[in-house]
Amino acid sequence: MQHQFSVQGMTCGHCERAVVHAVREVDTEAVVRVDLGSGQVTVESDKSRDAIANAIREEGYQVAA
Amino acid sequence: MQHQFSVQGMTCGHCERAVVHAVREVDTEAVVRVDLGSGQVTVESDKSRDAIANAIREEGYQVAA
Repeated sequence: MQHQFSVQGMTCGHCERAVVHAVREVDTEAVVRVDLGSGQVTVESDKSRDAIANAIREEGYQVAA
Repeated sequence: MQHQFSVQGMTCGHCERAVVHAVREVDTEAVVRVDLGSGQVTVESDKSRDAIANAIREEGYQVAA
């Protein structure tokens, strides 16, 4: 399943990696793409949208509902 | 000795930690203060200014001469 998130607060490559790692902690097999410029994060995963969004939020970023 | 650097490119707490760690790899006892807003990095260290500046540059940030 593909989930799309609009994430605020990612400013650099460290942030990108932090988000990717946070998602992978929820689903080690997730495929995560981050577009820093637009803040768009695309996740292919069988986990729920909420579980993934919460993982990103816990990393300190805002995720649009 | 206190060194003052004007560093460009630090955007977030990850960057701050990356710079602190880079300086500490040159001098494990360095005291490093980072002001993200202004980009000012203050380092108390017996190592040379050049050695510290180069460590910060190698981390991917621009240091004013």
